[in-house]
Amino acid sequence: MHILISNDDGVYAPGLAALASALGQDAQSICVVAPDRNRSGASNSLTLDRPLEAYAHESGFISINGTPTDCVHLGVSGLFSDERRPDLVVSGINAGANLGDDVLYSGTVAAAMEGRNCRLPPIAVSLCSFHPQHFDTAAEIVRVLVSKLESLVVAPRTVLNVNVPDLPLERIRGIHVTRLGHRFAGEPPVKVLDPRGRTRYWIAGTGDAADAEPGTDFYAVEQGFVSVTPLQIDMSHYSGMESLALWLEELN
Amino acid sequence: MHILISNDDGVYAPGLAALASALGQDAQSICVVAPDRNRSGASNSLTLDRPLEAYAHESGFISINGTPTDCVHLGVSGLFSDERRPDLVVSGINAGANLGDDVLYSGTVAAAMEGRNCRLPPIAVSLCSFHPQHFDTAAEIVRVLVSKLESLVVAPRTVLNVNVPDLPLERIRGIHVTRLGHRFAGEPPVKVLDPRGRTRYWIAGTGDAADAEPGTDFYAVEQGFVSVTPLQIDMSHYSGMESLALWLEELN
Amino acid sequence: MHILISNDDGVYAPGLAALASALGQDAQSICVVAPDRNRSGASNSLTLDRPLEAYAHESGFISINGTPTDCVHLGVSGLFSDERRPDLVVSGINAGANLGDDVLYSGTVAAAMEGRNCRLPPIAVSLCSFHPQHFDTAAEIVRVLVSKLESLVVAPRTVLNVNVPDLPLERIRGIHVTRLGHRFAGEPPVKVLDPRGRTRYWIAGTGDAADAEPGTDFYAVEQGFVSVTPLQIDMSHYSGMESLALWLEELN
Amino acid sequence: MHILISNDDGVYAPGLAALASALGQDAQSICVVAPDRNRSGASNSLTLDRPLEAYAHESGFISINGTPTDCVHLGVSGLFSDERRPDLVVSGINAGANLGDDVLYSGTVAAAMEGRNCRLPPIAVSLCSFHPQHFDTAAEIVRVLVSKLESLVVAPRTVLNVNVPDLPLERIRGIHVTRLGHRFAGEPPVKVLDPRGRTRYWIAGTGDAADAEPGTDFYAVEQGFVSVTPLQIDMSHYSGMESLALWLEELN
Repeated sequence: MHILISNDDGVYAPGLAALASALGQDAQSICVVAPDRNRSGASNSLTLDRPLEAYAHESGFISINGTPTDCVHLGVSGLFSDERRPDLVVSGINAGANLGDDVLYSGTVAAAMEGRNCRLPPIAVSLCSFHPQHFDTAAEIVRVLVSKLESLVVAPRTVLNVNVPDLPLERIRGIHVTRLGHRFAGEPPVKVLDPRGRTRYWIAGTGDAADAEPGTDFYAVEQGFVSVTPLQIDMSHYSGMESLALWLEELN
Repeated sequence: MHILISNDDGVYAPGLAALASALGQDAQSICVVAPDRNRSGASNSLTLDRPLEAYAHESGFISINGTPTDCVHLGVSGLFSDERRPDLVVSGINAGANLGDDVLYSGTVAAAMEGRNCRLPPIAVSLCSFHPQHFDTAAEIVRVLVSKLESLVVAPRTVLNVNVPDLPLERIRGIHVTRLGHRFAGEPPVKVLDPRGRTRYWIAGTGDAADAEPGTDFYAVEQGFVSVTPLQIDMSHYSGMESLALWLEELN
Repeated sequence: MHILISNDDGVYAPGLAALASALGQDAQSICVVAPDRNRSGASNSLTLDRPLEAYAHESGFISINGTPTDCVHLGVSGLFSDERRPDLVVSGINAGANLGDDVLYSGTVAAAMEGRNCRLPPIAVSLCSFHPQHFDTAAEIVRVLVSKLESLVVAPRTVLNVNVPDLPLERIRGIHVTRLGHRFAGEPPVKVLDPRGRTRYWIAGTGDAADAEPGTDFYAVEQGFVSVTPLQIDMSHYSGMESLALWLEELN
Repeated sequence: MHILISNDDGVYAPGLAALASALGQDAQSICVVAPDRNRSGASNSLTLDRPLEAYAHESGFISINGTPTDCVHLGVSGLFSDERRPDLVVSGINAGANLGDDVLYSGTVAAAMEGRNCRLPPIAVSLCSFHPQHFDTAAEIVRVLVSKLESLVVAPRTVLNVNVPDLPLERIRGIHVTRLGHRFAGEPPVKVLDPRGRTRYWIAGTGDAADAEPGTDFYAVEQGFVSVTPLQIDMSHYSGMESLALWLEELN
């Protein structure tokens, strides 16, 4: 199995190194292509207005002066591994949770999504803590998931969003399949003055969990379980199509 | 009705002016908050690492040195309209289609999504052409949709993704409710040399439609119909949860 | 005379329009190439790591997604005026003074410097006020300077740095040739907290005048005179070379 | 002696590590504050529109998401070394020459300039090669210069611009005090097409030496000598002031 690894915390992030080290144990080959600096919050943004530069580090990791999506977009073309396309994309280990609505903004999840046309379903991995300690726990869990991945049957273009509690491995209580919860709207933007007295607006953090009931990713992690949420790329709201059609009939 | 208008083509884009002009006819108030320059491909990216600057133009439009999502995030807080929160967010009119997988990368759709907690379902509007001519057609269609929007019943956090053929209004054949089609993987990145002889990688365009069957957004637009696709923010792949759970049982 | 006009406040700045309008009266042709947004403080920075985009506005002005130096670098090649190279570069009218040490950081002065290989000595024009009112005063003064410029004899690669008091034209007391004064080190950087509690450092304003004696640019402007300072591109400190050589003898 | 070290090639550049290692031998303390990525060509640009982030690496080096000038501006305030202001700023070792007109655009020289108010004259060091090999040569030379610096008498606000041939130390022929030569205008910008067929303009390299006579920095380096050019911050063209005043008399 050939694995492409990326993240959104940047090429020097400890979570990336931990992931590469764990997946390198079993894989036929790994190739790491990551942003040259922290690009948290980048979502699926693509860089179209300039060409990108690839820099090969001594570690063998490649950094790109672009977004997580850029990195995987270039990496799945096999540009950096002798024209060999990866079988699988794994993104992470993010320093912080990607739960509920976070998924919309997350560069970690976006990097995984960009691997949706590979042979195996891509995986995004996040460690749920503001000050993450146990990257090794998340690394070991994703290593095990990957080792079994050939036998997983899912619809094409499904992404696995994995969130791991920041605990020693032996304290992890198991793995739960979850749906996304969702968050309250976050704190309002903060007005700040620059040193020359002009008003600026700083976007504040995300909100707390608004829907963290049993079955959600929030709940699983809070209970000490690893959360695995299958995500579909297709956002069509099928069940809402009929009422919309009725409404539109009046307009046609 | 108080409407917040944004886009991803930037504050000087003709599609934005056309949209503001059309919606200004009926609304109690409109407020335009858009990026200071073209941010196509920005997806849902949020700017967290710096505060943002708002600039009020003579036109009354406000530009932000950030992403489409930033603009709507600030705008829905009512920062720029005497602390009044909008009832509705409308984003566009994008110069170019947002069909199928485009939705993942689109700043236009992302701006609309960021209005998901407003009272009325947000709308993203795109004009389907590489060299768009008929912004007035799209503007009139969205004006009519908005005028009826109070009577639409949809699930919370649904977004309407509207794509309009680039035709005179009288040649539009009607409005179809659609699902997202999807695109082939795009052209591979292009290797270019900079003037100093170093290799760079330029991400190429999106692919052609891979799934453009009847019922898709691609098909509707190609046939001369306006496409309206209801999008859900929640990407949980509910129908895939069971098989995933079975697979995980072995691991637990 | 063919004149290339640029600035660092960006293509939509009122000072740029005032300058173009004034110089357009007498010149054989003008060509305006300016940054797409405010690039104050850009100094002579050049963009080498990506190609630049030129956008032709309805006004005939061209904007570049780069620095002031980029704009003039492209403009003096004649790229945007049918391959005709300009005889002269004029940069401004900057909204704010460029006095003393400001010259090091100024994008306005840098844009002028980039025209140093044209036939006539480039001119940088700034209006000295935090809330500039009288762009027309500065515009008229630079128009007159330019109309006489053919008869000025200066060393090659000399730049004229012009600072105009923000007064009605009839209250301007005359024009003085000046040397650069210099400023005290500015206020120290300001520590701010971002909304997530992390420390950030915001560079504060420039310092007050430390050397504003008669003969300096600071003094002239304060007294109601236009200041014209000839700048040389060559920063070699000729008079300091001998003592340096003596010191180095011990090391050789 | 407390030394602040910076560069424009970024915090991971080998020239920075070589410089820090050499100067760390003799100094009472060193503090390294450098851009988080390559900022070649940044000149004296200052970041005013956003606050800056400082990141402390395991090596003890601090990176800033800004320009070389930003780094030194923050560093000379003593922010990163227990409020202790440095006695001296040394910038480099740049991977590539900074000769003649390069000085205008160089971030390496700009970083040194920003230390002009420290007790000792700042030093910019560059290794003259497209593929630099002998950082240790340049590091040793700057170490020796710094060790004698207390005895150097120069005018306030003088910067030493040091260029070192890319040779083993034993093949360096000595040190010459030089003036700046200058370069021909560089190659014209290169027109390129992006993958979507739009024209873009890529700024090409700097020109060859136009003035490389004996006495210039170009000449010294070509002959195998280290070049040390004293630079003055004050660009006032004193000898040109009289003829300018005569010319202006007609206008007054």
